[in-house]
Amino acid sequence: MKDKVISSLHKLRDISPLVHHITNSVTINDCANITLAIGASPVMADDENEVKEMVNLAKALVLNIGTLNARTVESMLIAGKEANKIGIPIVLDPVGAGATSYRTMWAQRLFEELNISVIRGNASEIMAMSGLTGNTKGVDSSSESDVAISCAKELIGFKPCTVAITGAVDIVIDEVRELRLKNGTKMMKQVTGTGCMASSLTGSFCASGVEPFLAAASALTVIGIAGELAECSLKNNEGIGTFRTRLFDYVHTMDANKINLYMEALENEKIRA
Amino acid sequence: MKDKVISSLHKLRDISPLVHHITNSVTINDCANITLAIGASPVMADDENEVKEMVNLAKALVLNIGTLNARTVESMLIAGKEANKIGIPIVLDPVGAGATSYRTMWAQRLFEELNISVIRGNASEIMAMSGLTGNTKGVDSSSESDVAISCAKELIGFKPCTVAITGAVDIVIDEVRELRLKNGTKMMKQVTGTGCMASSLTGSFCASGVEPFLAAASALTVIGIAGELAECSLKNNEGIGTFRTRLFDYVHTMDANKINLYMEALENEKIRA
Amino acid sequence: MKDKVISSLHKLRDISPLVHHITNSVTINDCANITLAIGASPVMADDENEVKEMVNLAKALVLNIGTLNARTVESMLIAGKEANKIGIPIVLDPVGAGATSYRTMWAQRLFEELNISVIRGNASEIMAMSGLTGNTKGVDSSSESDVAISCAKELIGFKPCTVAITGAVDIVIDEVRELRLKNGTKMMKQVTGTGCMASSLTGSFCASGVEPFLAAASALTVIGIAGELAECSLKNNEGIGTFRTRLFDYVHTMDANKINLYMEALENEKIRA
Repeated sequence: MKDKVISSLHKLRDISPLVHHITNSVTINDCANITLAIGASPVMADDENEVKEMVNLAKALVLNIGTLNARTVESMLIAGKEANKIGIPIVLDPVGAGATSYRTMWAQRLFEELNISVIRGNASEIMAMSGLTGNTKGVDSSSESDVAISCAKELIGFKPCTVAITGAVDIVIDEVRELRLKNGTKMMKQVTGTGCMASSLTGSFCASGVEPFLAAASALTVIGIAGELAECSLKNNEGIGTFRTRLFDYVHTMDANKINLYMEALENEKIRA
Repeated sequence: MKDKVISSLHKLRDISPLVHHITNSVTINDCANITLAIGASPVMADDENEVKEMVNLAKALVLNIGTLNARTVESMLIAGKEANKIGIPIVLDPVGAGATSYRTMWAQRLFEELNISVIRGNASEIMAMSGLTGNTKGVDSSSESDVAISCAKELIGFKPCTVAITGAVDIVIDEVRELRLKNGTKMMKQVTGTGCMASSLTGSFCASGVEPFLAAASALTVIGIAGELAECSLKNNEGIGTFRTRLFDYVHTMDANKINLYMEALENEKIRA
Repeated sequence: MKDKVISSLHKLRDISPLVHHITNSVTINDCANITLAIGASPVMADDENEVKEMVNLAKALVLNIGTLNARTVESMLIAGKEANKIGIPIVLDPVGAGATSYRTMWAQRLFEELNISVIRGNASEIMAMSGLTGNTKGVDSSSESDVAISCAKELIGFKPCTVAITGAVDIVIDEVRELRLKNGTKMMKQVTGTGCMASSLTGSFCASGVEPFLAAASALTVIGIAGELAECSLKNNEGIGTFRTRLFDYVHTMDANKINLYMEALENEKIRA
């Protein structure tokens, strides 16, 4: 798996593909900069008058509903349909699905109306997308991540795609494979946008022609290792300000050596029965 | 006062409350990250289709008119009314009130139509909100901050709330109390968003169940001390780039020790006649 | 030329003018902070209900179409016409002109309907504005920058203004003068917003009463030197995160000494035949 991630990274940097984002206003700058940091090229146009044309210049589309609104969700549909038509992959980040009914509805609708290559969310977002509502503690004795995995499988059963569930352990899952990645640090939850950035990185790998499952695995590995190295580098009185700066630094300077040294895949890729 | 601020901070970090922001597009990322830095949790949804539901998940609402527009101001009214209905505190940041009539009108209207717990602004914004227009130099021989204080008292007389006037000396004032806080540094004016961040921190303390007057005092103390420490840490050729990063660091690593060492309250809390 | 840039910088810092931006959602925070870093004061209001009044408080207007949309482009027209009426300079950043027809159309229309003092873009944006479409490699044996220069001359012929073409070598051109500036580093292309920031700095110099040609030259010199120094300061494992922070630092701490030491003008200002 390490070799695959390393060659994905080399491929991305060779191609430096254009990644079209329609994203939220909170982390839009971070999404653009992390796309540049890994070696791809971002464009963030979101007006319905130009997204169709812009998609045609790009090699992948990232849709992020962090600050979902009536204007940009229409642009997402237009851009998404065009992306499907011309055959470029779409990454969906269903930020906050489950928090409000508007958000859940749109996350589901984007998934239904478009062919999505990768959904990247946390456990509760993935659960919300599959229609699971309310308190997951009552579901059964399964842990949250087990519940999220079965929700991911439902989504994949409904419409084939890769689902990346990020958390203490990241899980990447598609129709036949399942992978657990152990890189990352709690501090990543203390900075806004690390989830969004993981989605942008996934879009960057997809845009390079890396297949969706490996693209998600590569993205989560890169940002996870970068997070660990960023945290390790902190000195006295340094906190999330410096951590955030270093996160960009370590994604930018990520290389084969760091991936070989630090990548931790808990289980190997496995064919499901 | 130091003990009260310290226990507010501990309370905030124990609870880690959700703080709903409807804010401007310039500093929205900073507002989210400073909320995380202090130990609370931000959500920045601003579409009228979901703000009512989102407010119900939050423990405080921050309304910031920095890039006021027809779309989000409607969301502010909807969210604000819901916040009042369910009884969570609202912090209003009347950014730029006084600069244009549209801005002044909306700052006043939000104050009139909603029950606001804390208004956090600079002297000219507070003056504009109370209806004082034009050149304050002509008012009388009072200094600008004295004029702002009497404007704050007018606002409080009209509708009870806490007003936090930030400047070289920060003044926190409510129906019976007045407090002057001397922390902070001029460099904070050379970075965009330090005012917005002070409002987000105030919202974070309010969301933790800290009463509004103490919430404002705690927020201004924390960001003021963080600003001083950030400036002190600068080396040769470091300017507002590094200062801004360190501001987040020092809010993130703020603790009882730093508050005890550096908090400077010019006057004690006092009961007004 | 060095002396002129140095005195422009001193002038800017003496006056600290207000610079009104209507800009994109990706780099709006960077535009505000770079304006503060150089010593001016930013305001980013973009609602049609207040831009006319806000322009009257400002000394220059920066229009940036990075995330062009139906709402803010109307505000740009209103603000631009008011700026022309009261006689303050406008800087236009035609971000992505040429990428979509909507973007190209608006870049051209803003130039036609308004009197623009400085257009600041890269070679392909300047070419798109002059109506040159398609693959520039087929045009003739000229290099891209030569083509861009002749496009800039066309624009200037159509309507007198200064055009700043940024790239490996920056070219500033007006009706009679042409200047090549060699400061800067490739790393500036790996961070989003360095072009936008160059436009904001140009607006800041214009707002100080520096004439447009010198304002553009001063802005490109300052950000170019800052970029070089930022890159030189990077240590092991530091990348675009730290680079970006230091870029703000070095703009903030820019001084006569650094300009004297590092400014590189490839050719002198020259009167064209």
